[in-house]
Amino acid sequence: MRTYAELSPTPRTILTPGPVEVDPRVLRALSYPILGQFDPEFTALMNETMEMLRGLFRTENNWAYPVDGTSRSGIEAVLNSLIEPGDRVLVPIYGRFGHLLHEIAERCGAEVSTIETEWGTVFDPEEVIAAIKRTKPQIVAIVHGETSTGRMQPLEDIGRTCRELDILLVVDAVATIGGVPVETDAWHLDAVIGGTQKCLSVPSGMSPITYNDRAERKVLARKRVERGIRPPGCVEPEVPRRPIQSNYLDLAQLQDYWSPARLNHHTEMTSMLYGLREGLRILHAEGLEARFARHRLHESALVAGLTAMGLALYGDPACKMPVVACVTIPEGIDGESVRSMLLELFSIEIASSFGPLKGKIWRIGTMGYSCSRKNVLHFLGAFEAVLLRHGVKLPAGAALQAALDVYSEAR
Amino acid sequence: MRTYAELSPTPRTILTPGPVEVDPRVLRALSYPILGQFDPEFTALMNETMEMLRGLFRTENNWAYPVDGTSRSGIEAVLNSLIEPGDRVLVPIYGRFGHLLHEIAERCGAEVSTIETEWGTVFDPEEVIAAIKRTKPQIVAIVHGETSTGRMQPLEDIGRTCRELDILLVVDAVATIGGVPVETDAWHLDAVIGGTQKCLSVPSGMSPITYNDRAERKVLARKRVERGIRPPGCVEPEVPRRPIQSNYLDLAQLQDYWSPARLNHHTEMTSMLYGLREGLRILHAEGLEARFARHRLHESALVAGLTAMGLALYGDPACKMPVVACVTIPEGIDGESVRSMLLELFSIEIASSFGPLKGKIWRIGTMGYSCSRKNVLHFLGAFEAVLLRHGVKLPAGAALQAALDVYSEAR
Repeated sequence: MRTYAELSPTPRTILTPGPVEVDPRVLRALSYPILGQFDPEFTALMNETMEMLRGLFRTENNWAYPVDGTSRSGIEAVLNSLIEPGDRVLVPIYGRFGHLLHEIAERCGAEVSTIETEWGTVFDPEEVIAAIKRTKPQIVAIVHGETSTGRMQPLEDIGRTCRELDILLVVDAVATIGGVPVETDAWHLDAVIGGTQKCLSVPSGMSPITYNDRAERKVLARKRVERGIRPPGCVEPEVPRRPIQSNYLDLAQLQDYWSPARLNHHTEMTSMLYGLREGLRILHAEGLEARFARHRLHESALVAGLTAMGLALYGDPACKMPVVACVTIPEGIDGESVRSMLLELFSIEIASSFGPLKGKIWRIGTMGYSCSRKNVLHFLGAFEAVLLRHGVKLPAGAALQAALDVYSEAR
Repeated sequence: MRTYAELSPTPRTILTPGPVEVDPRVLRALSYPILGQFDPEFTALMNETMEMLRGLFRTENNWAYPVDGTSRSGIEAVLNSLIEPGDRVLVPIYGRFGHLLHEIAERCGAEVSTIETEWGTVFDPEEVIAAIKRTKPQIVAIVHGETSTGRMQPLEDIGRTCRELDILLVVDAVATIGGVPVETDAWHLDAVIGGTQKCLSVPSGMSPITYNDRAERKVLARKRVERGIRPPGCVEPEVPRRPIQSNYLDLAQLQDYWSPARLNHHTEMTSMLYGLREGLRILHAEGLEARFARHRLHESALVAGLTAMGLALYGDPACKMPVVACVTIPEGIDGESVRSMLLELFSIEIASSFGPLKGKIWRIGTMGYSCSRKNVLHFLGAFEAVLLRHGVKLPAGAALQAALDVYSEAR
C-alpha cells in the first residue's frame, strides 16, 4: 500500500451554482467531537434544526427535517413516498432538473405527463394550469430555480390551482432555498425539497425537506413498520395496498425517527447535522430578508460588470434566477479553456452547463457565503484578464468600474 | 425567531457499537475548505479513496467507492441494484440487522426466504448451505457482524458454495469493516457493504461498498442513462426489462459518476469524502493487522474486567464479535438507569439493544478510535461505581486490576 499525502486542499473561490464555499463557522462546526445519535444533547440539536428549518421554509408544517443524503435523495424521498404506482404525475420541464423529476417519478411507477418549454424561459403559469386541467394529475412536480438555465418559475398561481383541485404540489427548491424567497405556506406548496450546498453554504450531504398534513396523509396510508423493530409478539401488520418502495428514503419511517418516539432507522449524520444547524443559525442571525437583499446586491454588481464587458447574458431576463448568471460564450471562444485558466491560474471555479447548453454558456453562481463583494470583484478582474488572454475584444477595465458603481450607489 | 446558542457539544466517551468517537485528524479533515466536485484536485482525492477502499476490503475489484448516505443507503443501493423483482433471495437471520436485509430485499420485490437461528448464536455454515440448496436463490444476503447480539458469522464456506452454484453473495460488513478481517476476494463475497461510523471512526454519512464483475454484470443489464443527461439527439434508449427502481441508489449511475467519465449524478459530499479519505489514510498508516490486534487487545482487557466484576457475558462465546461485548443485565437492575447515570455523571455512552433483547443486555463497543486503553480503563472504573450505586454486589476494585493485568501481560 503506497503512502498517501496529508489532506491539504488548495483554497478556491467557488462561483458555480453549487457546491459553493462553506461558511468557516460551518466548517468549524463540522470539526466538533460527535455525540451519540440518541444522546439527549444531540436530539435537542435535531429539534432545534427542525425549528430553524420551519423558519427557512416559511411554514407552520409539523415536518421539516433533513434527509441524510445529497439533494436528490430528498427529491427521491418525497416522490418515492408520495407517488403510488399508477399515479398520474405532471412534470413541467424547463431545464435539466425538470428531466430529473420526470426520471425519478417514472422510476416510482408514475404515469408521467410532461410539458416542456424552451430552455432559457419558464412557463406562463396559465400554461401549467391548462396542462393540469387537461391531464388531471394526482401530483405536480416542478423545479423552482433551474440552475442549468438560470431561470426561476413563479409558483403562486400554480399552487393556488393545485390546492383548489386537491392536487399535491411538490417543489424542488434545492437551488433557491436560503437565497431567494420560498414561501411554502403562502404559495400552497405541499412538499418542498431544499439543498445545503448552494445558498445555505453547508457542504453537500443533507437535503432539508418539509411537507404538510395533506402530504403526510398519503405517506401514512402507505406506512409499514420495519421488520426487526416491531414490538415483540406483534402480529404481522397488514401490508398497505401499495407500500413505499424504499426503506432508506421512506418518509413514514424518517418522520418516526425525527418524532419524539425516535424510532430507530438510520444512524443520523452527526457531523453533517452540526453543519446544517450552524448554517441555519447563521442564516437566521443574518435574517432572511437581509440575506435575500445581499444576494440581489451582488447579482446587480456581477451583471453590471459582465454587461460592461460587452458579454451577452443568456435567457429571458424576466425570469432570471437572482443567484445564477448565465453568460453566452462568445463566438469562436473555447469555454472550457477559459474555465481551466480561471481555475488553474486564479483558483476560481465557474461552471459550464448540460445537454443543449453544453459549450454554449458559462454559469456563474453568487450563492450563500460565496455571494460577497470580494468574490464578485476578484472574479470580474480575473475573468476580464482570461478573456483578453483568449482574444476576446472588450473594453479593458470597464467591468470593475461598473461593479464598483453598483456598490457605491448601494451605500 | 429565537436566538440559538453556539454549538458546543459536551465531550463524550462513546463506547456503543457505533457511532463511536471520531479520530481528531478526521474531524480536522472535515473542517477544511471544500473543493468543487469536478475540480481535478477533488477527483484525485476520490480516486485515492477508491484505492484505499480496495485495500480495506482486501479486494482487486474495480468498484470500491462510498454511497452518499448512512450505512443502510449502501445496503439498499446494493440490493436495489442487484435484485430484480421476482428474484429469489435467501436471508439467514441471527439478529436485528438480518431482519433489515429481509425488509429491504422484500421492498425490492424479491421473493425472500429466511432461516432464523436463536439470537446470541450464529449459523453453522452447513445449515445455510442446506437452505441454499433447498431454496435455490439467485442472491444470498447475510450480516457479517450483528451488533444487536454481538455475534459474528463465519462466511468462508458459504462464500465457496455460493460461487460454485453461481449465486451472488451480498454481505453487510457495516460493523466489522476496519476492526476485524473482511476478506472480500478470499471468501468469494460478491458485494460487501461497510460503515464509516464504527471501526473506521469517521462520522456517519457515507457507506463504502465494493462489488465484483459478477455483480456488475447484473447491474449493467439493468442500466438506463438518466433523462436530462442523455447526449443531444440521443434516441430514447430501450428500457431494460426490469430497470433499477431507485435513481439515487442506482449502482449503474453511481459507477459512471466514480468512473473517469464522471457522468453527473449527485453532488459528491465533499467534506464527508475528506473525512473518509483521512480515516482510510490513518487505517492504512496503522496497518490492518496492527489494527485488528489492537481491537483484540482492548477486547481482552474489557472482557477480563467485566468478568472480574462477576458479570455474565451474553451469547455464545465461540462466535463473539471482537468489537462488541454484550453483558447480561443483572436480575432486578434497571438497565436504562445505569446507562443514564453513566452518561450524565461520567459522560460515557454505552448501548442497550433491540426487540427480544431490549432491557436484557448492555452492549459495549470497542471500535476504531474509541478502542483504546484509556477508554477501557475509564469505563471499567465508572461502570463499577455506577453498578455499586445501583446495589449490585461485586468485588470492588477487581475489574480494573484484571484489565491492568491484561495490559501488563501484553507488554
